[in-house]
Amino acid sequence: MKTYILPKQSRWPKLIQRPKMKQADLSILVAEIFSAVEQSGDKAVEKYSRLFDRNDLETVRVSEQALRNAIKNVSPDLQLAIQTAARNIEQFHRSQFETTKIVETMRGVKCWRESRAIEKIGMYIPGGSAPLFSTVLMLGIPAKIAGCTELVLCTPANQQGQIDPAILFTAHLLGLTQVFAVGGIQAIAAMTFGTNTIPKVDKIFGPGNQYVTAAKQYAQNFGVAIDMPAGPSEVLVIANKKSNPVFVAADLLAQAEHGADSQVILLSDSEQVVRKTQDELRKQLTALPRKAIASKALKQSRSLVLENIETCFEFSNAYAPEHLIVAFDAFEEFLPFIKNAGSVFLGTNTCESLGDYASGTNHTLPTNGYARNYSGVSLDSFLKKITFQQVSDLGLRNIGNVVEVMAEAENLHAHKQAVSVRLQALNRQSKKRT
Amino acid sequence: MKTYILPKQSRWPKLIQRPKMKQADLSILVAEIFSAVEQSGDKAVEKYSRLFDRNDLETVRVSEQALRNAIKNVSPDLQLAIQTAARNIEQFHRSQFETTKIVETMRGVKCWRESRAIEKIGMYIPGGSAPLFSTVLMLGIPAKIAGCTELVLCTPANQQGQIDPAILFTAHLLGLTQVFAVGGIQAIAAMTFGTNTIPKVDKIFGPGNQYVTAAKQYAQNFGVAIDMPAGPSEVLVIANKKSNPVFVAADLLAQAEHGADSQVILLSDSEQVVRKTQDELRKQLTALPRKAIASKALKQSRSLVLENIETCFEFSNAYAPEHLIVAFDAFEEFLPFIKNAGSVFLGTNTCESLGDYASGTNHTLPTNGYARNYSGVSLDSFLKKITFQQVSDLGLRNIGNVVEVMAEAENLHAHKQAVSVRLQALNRQSKKRT
Repeated sequence: MKTYILPKQSRWPKLIQRPKMKQADLSILVAEIFSAVEQSGDKAVEKYSRLFDRNDLETVRVSEQALRNAIKNVSPDLQLAIQTAARNIEQFHRSQFETTKIVETMRGVKCWRESRAIEKIGMYIPGGSAPLFSTVLMLGIPAKIAGCTELVLCTPANQQGQIDPAILFTAHLLGLTQVFAVGGIQAIAAMTFGTNTIPKVDKIFGPGNQYVTAAKQYAQNFGVAIDMPAGPSEVLVIANKKSNPVFVAADLLAQAEHGADSQVILLSDSEQVVRKTQDELRKQLTALPRKAIASKALKQSRSLVLENIETCFEFSNAYAPEHLIVAFDAFEEFLPFIKNAGSVFLGTNTCESLGDYASGTNHTLPTNGYARNYSGVSLDSFLKKITFQQVSDLGLRNIGNVVEVMAEAENLHAHKQAVSVRLQALNRQSKKRT
Repeated sequence: MKTYILPKQSRWPKLIQRPKMKQADLSILVAEIFSAVEQSGDKAVEKYSRLFDRNDLETVRVSEQALRNAIKNVSPDLQLAIQTAARNIEQFHRSQFETTKIVETMRGVKCWRESRAIEKIGMYIPGGSAPLFSTVLMLGIPAKIAGCTELVLCTPANQQGQIDPAILFTAHLLGLTQVFAVGGIQAIAAMTFGTNTIPKVDKIFGPGNQYVTAAKQYAQNFGVAIDMPAGPSEVLVIANKKSNPVFVAADLLAQAEHGADSQVILLSDSEQVVRKTQDELRKQLTALPRKAIASKALKQSRSLVLENIETCFEFSNAYAPEHLIVAFDAFEEFLPFIKNAGSVFLGTNTCESLGDYASGTNHTLPTNGYARNYSGVSLDSFLKKITFQQVSDLGLRNIGNVVEVMAEAENLHAHKQAVSVRLQALNRQSKKRT
């Protein structure tokens, strides 16, 4: 971890840069697989699963029985933990429902919004070294609350054709029935076009490697929406003199172990806290199973000592971190300073992993600086908000001429005419009455 | 307008298709202009403005004085109309603010969301035959309410270097000061990278021709967000026996005059209403200044007579129209049927043009079937919702083990450790106290 003492503000643009990723140009591969899946459906999906995931599954759909039986391979402790997390996540996301407010902008002119679920949702859950059953909770629960009618889950099987039982248990807990043992580009293509086995969806959610990310990006050319642009995970910690270096180091490592491309940033007004944290980092790192990954991530990470805590928040806003940890308890006065962040963890107790799993907030968050212009996943991500308006006779009399004048000024005479024919009809009616 | 009487449901997938657009592949042109603007800034912007808009502006920034003076060339009637529309739009969008709700998901575990403005907003306002000052209202007002700090407006000047005074008047009314006489791909590129004159923004809004649309799409590769994917405008009208064919025809024409690529769809359970509407269409069309455009649009439009009104709503959901007009007054029972639509106009009085200009709802809406998975522009489009969490000692005791168990099961030991070090510290403290 490189340390910068009081860097000038003119250097910030360099210091907020994410590690450059060596990215292969996957566009040709993605286009090829999409085209094959569009044309040959399941056959193409199976072909690419054999090729990339080296499994040879006759059917990719996970049976009801397999979903039901997964519980046998999940410890009671883990079952209980998942259920507790599910309750918290459900409670927080349910609170995000908006009640319909009818606004009468002029007398007789009523406007309001109503929420409707996006009907068909696709969830991509990575397999591999970290079986992310927590992501099943983070996507499946708000989708259920929103009322999405079709929930499709794709996750790659290992070479033995198996899916981690915790993923299956969690899917079954949420009542998901359409679970498919398929991963990678071919999974995203299948959910984009639909095959005989895998349904076509309206919006695709979930994290993934660079193949999945490129495929999600490409899927948007075919009318599918995605949750947000993706990038490696990151945390920014703001520590002051009272912060505990043991906790801060543990938080930095929790992010660093995600992947060699993760980035962690430590900001402080105290050089001493930064030094102590770095000592702690070295100590804690030795005991870590994913030590090799974390070390690589730390190499491209940064500590900055800045003038004061206000400046730390300014830097944080410029960086726009996915996760922001405010590692001290007197945080209240600084809340209004926070402008760009995905999710914020306040106080010495509140480590990021609480939110990653169980506090109730969503862990699907904007990375790579996208916290400047994107929100994390929430109930809203599974809803459309449709506007409605209704205008009474009085309302039409109040607003009609305003629209006639504006439409004429925009040279849109038929727009004007749609109002005029109605106003004329109203006037004829009134004359008849009098 | 082609009419289909009781088409089988198996034919719907054909009937919901939008007109195929002949689209030039603009990717090379867009990439060239983006690269030039990234490297040469204002110089490149000026070069392409000369080339495409054939104007030769020394400075593209509209002066404060020009903004202030625009009022002289806007009729008092239009000034008043714009002000009235602005009030309605402001009232409706202001009602979309959410109050912060703190949810205690477990005792001592508090989660909430706070809204923060996206700081820098770019608005693209097309020039040309229809000077869309109404779009200045629809984008500028929610941006102001959200608290966006930098609002940049780009709009092409005509060959005399002039911008429609109604656009300048509206911009000035909203207090916009950064208005630039630049259009097309170069405008979008300038807002993406920033130049000496035109600021870089975080999110770009607004309609445009195929060049602007392609440029907005491409801008996303450089960390910029956009409002939504764009396509030609469209309306779907559901009429029953009581609908007024004069009104319905006027509504269809108001959409058709937008562009030759607009699509209008009429659904009814009554063949008679469809016939009468078509007679009316022919009549009203003759008087229209944009008759040529509207005729072309009508050619690729459709009337469908369906079994009953329920089936009309089913078809409408499959089509997912940008604008849905329910052209009869007994609409109440059908509201829950509406699943996919951008904005809905209820009852015989409520023509689409009311919402296009002044009712208060936003007119920037999802087209091309995107009403299945996107909402229209609202206050939310200018905000991020950041999640916050704070956990007390009691909270950490309640939730800590849940997270330890889950993190371990996902093989993320540093995630677990971040909790464990805190629980251990808590336990040491309690021991000291007892």
